[in-house]
Amino acid sequence: MNLTGLDQLIQYALKKPRKKIAVASAADKPVLEAVFEAVKLGFVEPCLIGPFREISTLAARIGMKNDTYEIIDEEDTQVACNIAVLMVKTGKADILMKGMVQTATLLKAVLDKENGIRKKDTLSHFALCQTRYYHKLLGLTDAAMNIFPNIHEKVRIIENAVEILQRLGYQLPKVAVLAPIEVVNTKIPSSSDAALLTSMNRKNQLSGCIIDGPLALDIAISPEAMIHKSIVSEVAGDADILITPDLNSGNILYKARMFLSDGMAASVITGASAPVVLTSRSDSEKNKLYSIALAAAIT
Amino acid sequence: MNLTGLDQLIQYALKKPRKKIAVASAADKPVLEAVFEAVKLGFVEPCLIGPFREISTLAARIGMKNDTYEIIDEEDTQVACNIAVLMVKTGKADILMKGMVQTATLLKAVLDKENGIRKKDTLSHFALCQTRYYHKLLGLTDAAMNIFPNIHEKVRIIENAVEILQRLGYQLPKVAVLAPIEVVNTKIPSSSDAALLTSMNRKNQLSGCIIDGPLALDIAISPEAMIHKSIVSEVAGDADILITPDLNSGNILYKARMFLSDGMAASVITGASAPVVLTSRSDSEKNKLYSIALAAAIT
Repeated sequence: MNLTGLDQLIQYALKKPRKKIAVASAADKPVLEAVFEAVKLGFVEPCLIGPFREISTLAARIGMKNDTYEIIDEEDTQVACNIAVLMVKTGKADILMKGMVQTATLLKAVLDKENGIRKKDTLSHFALCQTRYYHKLLGLTDAAMNIFPNIHEKVRIIENAVEILQRLGYQLPKVAVLAPIEVVNTKIPSSSDAALLTSMNRKNQLSGCIIDGPLALDIAISPEAMIHKSIVSEVAGDADILITPDLNSGNILYKARMFLSDGMAASVITGASAPVVLTSRSDSEKNKLYSIALAAAIT
Repeated sequence: MNLTGLDQLIQYALKKPRKKIAVASAADKPVLEAVFEAVKLGFVEPCLIGPFREISTLAARIGMKNDTYEIIDEEDTQVACNIAVLMVKTGKADILMKGMVQTATLLKAVLDKENGIRKKDTLSHFALCQTRYYHKLLGLTDAAMNIFPNIHEKVRIIENAVEILQRLGYQLPKVAVLAPIEVVNTKIPSSSDAALLTSMNRKNQLSGCIIDGPLALDIAISPEAMIHKSIVSEVAGDADILITPDLNSGNILYKARMFLSDGMAASVITGASAPVVLTSRSDSEKNKLYSIALAAAIT
């Protein structure tokens, strides 16, 4: 089973019970527009935390009826984040979303030892990209969270990503661990890490997926490149998930998809007890909507 | 002055005296096809070094008349590389090109202390990419040579790239030093390196270009992203050259351009006394031709 279009995420989300989404510091027009679109489509109910007057003014301006959302009036952005996280912790919300607030402020609330919602030791960013240049959706991790993940963190990053695709119905997603080469070179740690992760997969230390690496990006996604370079691999040319060596490369790859190609993407932070939708100012409204749909589909 | 299409490289090459290209280990059909195309267009004269019988058979098969090229008969690939390098060293060739031989074998000849043609302390890979997703050609370095360049090596990499664009007529190319963020975070050395390189440029330690960084890729190339994030920069949204943090990210960005977008590119290794055309098996014939044209245009 492979997903080929991001619209399918909306279909998946609609098949499930409607989800409660807590928007931290919600006085943010582009965020409210995406949330409102998801409300109209029918797969989320929002709880908007932040300054009442600003939120209700913005909501009225974009045509959101006031019986379609709830507001918790809170001026302080850190407190607004804490409340949103608490809603997830107490089962009052299924999805957390960032509004007009610094990422660090929201993550502080998420990661708080006492009141946070960290579930695993590693939170990671996962994006699902759609492009005419690939035959199916392409997962990509990690473009935003882990600066230089070590091998143990990479294991968690893979587990987080595989869990998402399994929740979307994939049986055994194909995971390509990227490096600049297809052989082990200990001067290039991304290549050694990739070989270790592949070996862990063969020995069932890391299961639920088929891992291969080191693979350069062309080999991971292009059957022609694979044939040209005579690579034999179950993953090459057909990867479902790309694991990048580190944040430098993950961030650049994600942004190359979005800004130097026809990329559209859904993305979430995973590893907390609920998915966190943490879109950027420069994401389009459609990408924000797809991210909410991905979060709703996997909870 | 900005170049907008790779075909312009062929026009530039045609305006200059015809260049001698030495092809090391030339019994390689795709390489010979690209060389032959450049011969027909009229901007190179090839000297093909390698096994006479194989080369002449391949040349005949692709319709290359035997008065359009010279063969130096040599079975051993390392010796063939040494001869090709010696031709450059003695002024008998202007461009070096890799044929059917490992990159390491050719580079061994290039870098040889006594008989090599290393001119600067740092050789680097430079690619000029054409895409409908950017308003002009986009330089990218380094996708293939330097694994983890330190700040001094990054200075050389920038100098190598700027020199190429200057030879193509650019007055003051705009250089974006990439990182995953737009501020300095000492936990992310790519961001500190970028800030240092920018400062060196402001203080004229590194001149002939306008450098800005750290810049995330979206900010470097998208005026919309720049405005969304309220970044003020002479380079942002309009970069001519992208400097990647390291080989992991450079290789992934180059391959994302070529395999997850509509990318076409010309690329050379620079920093030796002649440009080295070192295309990959998975490059298209057109990309190989553009690379030869770039090499001819800058010598």
